[in-house]
Amino acid sequence: MRLGSIEADGTKFVCAVGNENYQIEDQVQFPTTTPVETLQQTVDYFKQFPDLKAISIASFGPIEIRKNAPKYGFITATPKPNWSNVDFLGRLKQDFDLPIVWTTDVNGSAYGEYVMSVLYNERIDSLTYYTIGTGVGAGTVIDGKFVGELGHPEMGHVRLKRHPDDLDFKGICPYHGDCLEGLVAGPTFEARTGNKGADVPLTDHVWDIMAYYIAQAALQTTLVMRPAKIVFGGGVMSEAFLDKVRDQFKTLMNGYLDVGELADYLTMPLVEHNGSATVGNFALAFNAVNH
Amino acid sequence: MRLGSIEADGTKFVCAVGNENYQIEDQVQFPTTTPVETLQQTVDYFKQFPDLKAISIASFGPIEIRKNAPKYGFITATPKPNWSNVDFLGRLKQDFDLPIVWTTDVNGSAYGEYVMSVLYNERIDSLTYYTIGTGVGAGTVIDGKFVGELGHPEMGHVRLKRHPDDLDFKGICPYHGDCLEGLVAGPTFEARTGNKGADVPLTDHVWDIMAYYIAQAALQTTLVMRPAKIVFGGGVMSEAFLDKVRDQFKTLMNGYLDVGELADYLTMPLVEHNGSATVGNFALAFNAVNH
Ligand SMILES: Nc1ncnc2c1ncn2[C@@H]1O[C@H](COP(=O)(O)OP(=O)(O)O)[C@@H](O)[C@H]1O
Ligand SMILES: Nc1ncnc2c1ncn2[C@@H]1O[C@H](COP(=O)(O)OP(=O)(O)O)[C@@H](O)[C@H]1O
Ligand SMILES: [Zn+2]
Ligand SMILES: [Zn+2]
Repeated sequence: MRLGSIEADGTKFVCAVGNENYQIEDQVQFPTTTPVETLQQTVDYFKQFPDLKAISIASFGPIEIRKNAPKYGFITATPKPNWSNVDFLGRLKQDFDLPIVWTTDVNGSAYGEYVMSVLYNERIDSLTYYTIGTGVGAGTVIDGKFVGELGHPEMGHVRLKRHPDDLDFKGICPYHGDCLEGLVAGPTFEARTGNKGADVPLTDHVWDIMAYYIAQAALQTTLVMRPAKIVFGGGVMSEAFLDKVRDQFKTLMNGYLDVGELADYLTMPLVEHNGSATVGNFALAFNAVNH
Repeated sequence: MRLGSIEADGTKFVCAVGNENYQIEDQVQFPTTTPVETLQQTVDYFKQFPDLKAISIASFGPIEIRKNAPKYGFITATPKPNWSNVDFLGRLKQDFDLPIVWTTDVNGSAYGEYVMSVLYNERIDSLTYYTIGTGVGAGTVIDGKFVGELGHPEMGHVRLKRHPDDLDFKGICPYHGDCLEGLVAGPTFEARTGNKGADVPLTDHVWDIMAYYIAQAALQTTLVMRPAKIVFGGGVMSEAFLDKVRDQFKTLMNGYLDVGELADYLTMPLVEHNGSATVGNFALAFNAVNH
């Protein structure tokens, strides 16, 4: 069955077609310019595939996900210029009379990792996926459903205990300063050190500070939801850095709760190259056909 | 249909029988002494009602709730003397060949508030219940199920940003010092002021500090799960104090997310006198008969 995937972030759109076995048949990528232009490119891309059975959209946000809300399917008050109050889903529906799934980019990724875990024979019913990239966000799947009734989670904006060696750093979140995103998003490397993250060696103390905050986020997630697994994607993450996060998590947890092997509990994505959302979209689109 | 409710906390057991309309027919209360004695009293109480169809237990913790775990039904490593590693559920099963539900005290309360909300015609699918009492804990219901796969949540032990006027207070949690429980549990009044909470007037600045921390907990819950409603029970809470929490929540949220009317979003329990768990137990016991 041919299914469509849209992964929309603030800098680029990745559109793909594939099947219910999560195999990508074709994929394109283009920059996120104006809504009119970018959504037209998206529509044009999928028009090439007349036998498409469903589409799933994993979008940057904030977005309206409450099905009974008047603005369901809209990107709402985003800081991204021109994209506030844009009827993303409505634009797609104009051209495609198909089931179209609408969720956040991180929910899409969480779902992708969730179905891949099942495929890998891990028996899990719940999973949280964090992206630590240009921004920070997370999505949670419990029993195949996304967490969030009044709206999608905004786990990137939780407040944390500050690291003693980082008290002078004000954080870069335009809304909150030193929330999680304000302290660990990719651009904090430039803000703290003047260098891009990719150029800061893992031996630099700034990485320990980052690990301390991300470990706190993992701890909060654990204490609040006790998911079976927490996955970390996004440009900032690597297995070597995640090891630092695990160390700090262990110290913070201090034996209080058992989460099993940390190497299995706090993990990199099963899908490589940040492709979890595409897998998630295919799975969500397939479900939409069958319900 | 006659149903049994056990609300077990560290100081007392409340046992009740009632029906699927949440009406209490009979109720007793006795102090929590040794496991052998207290569980025998519990068994003796319910033996009076031979037509009992199911029992639900809402217990203090930590407890093992994973059904496939060898110690399912046990109280695990509690600081309460004599109660670690006690097979609570097993003891009940020795005498009652009935469906017996096993969950945490706060999950029981969350479930009670959830079913009451439905009865009050609030259309909600998710709710978090906090108790701010001798200890601090919370339970979350989403779509009729409790959140927590690896175990029950321990939301009382999240870390928070400290209030600038409270930096000298070390907190009273034996595990973490200044976690949420360490900062706002009832006994923190004695630790901070030398007086019991009931004797500290609401005009005292200590209440603003408390409100700041509880508002942060509500904010975390909102950002992580976006439930439809957060309910606050326990001896420390009152409508007047909750108003302070709402004010601080509003300041912290700073318009970032819409949660509707704060008076409807952050609320006192619908069930008065901290009786939510009994209602929850009747509802859970009734479900257990029918599944
Ligand atoms: N090796 C690295 N170490 C630390 N930060 C990195 C690394 N590579 C990329 N980044 C940062 O990650 C961010 C991009 O994250 P990414 O997940 O790729 O994109 P986006 O979040 O925009 O979808 C940028 O801020 C970039 O500087
Ligand atoms: N009016 C009050 N103001 C502040 N704290 C109070 C008040 N009344 C009781 N408390 C505190 O609440 C705690 C008891 O909470 P409660 O929920 O009744 O019991 P428990 O948590 O033990 O089941 C005690 O620490 C008590 O000092
Ligand atoms: Zn923020
Ligand atoms: Zn603690």
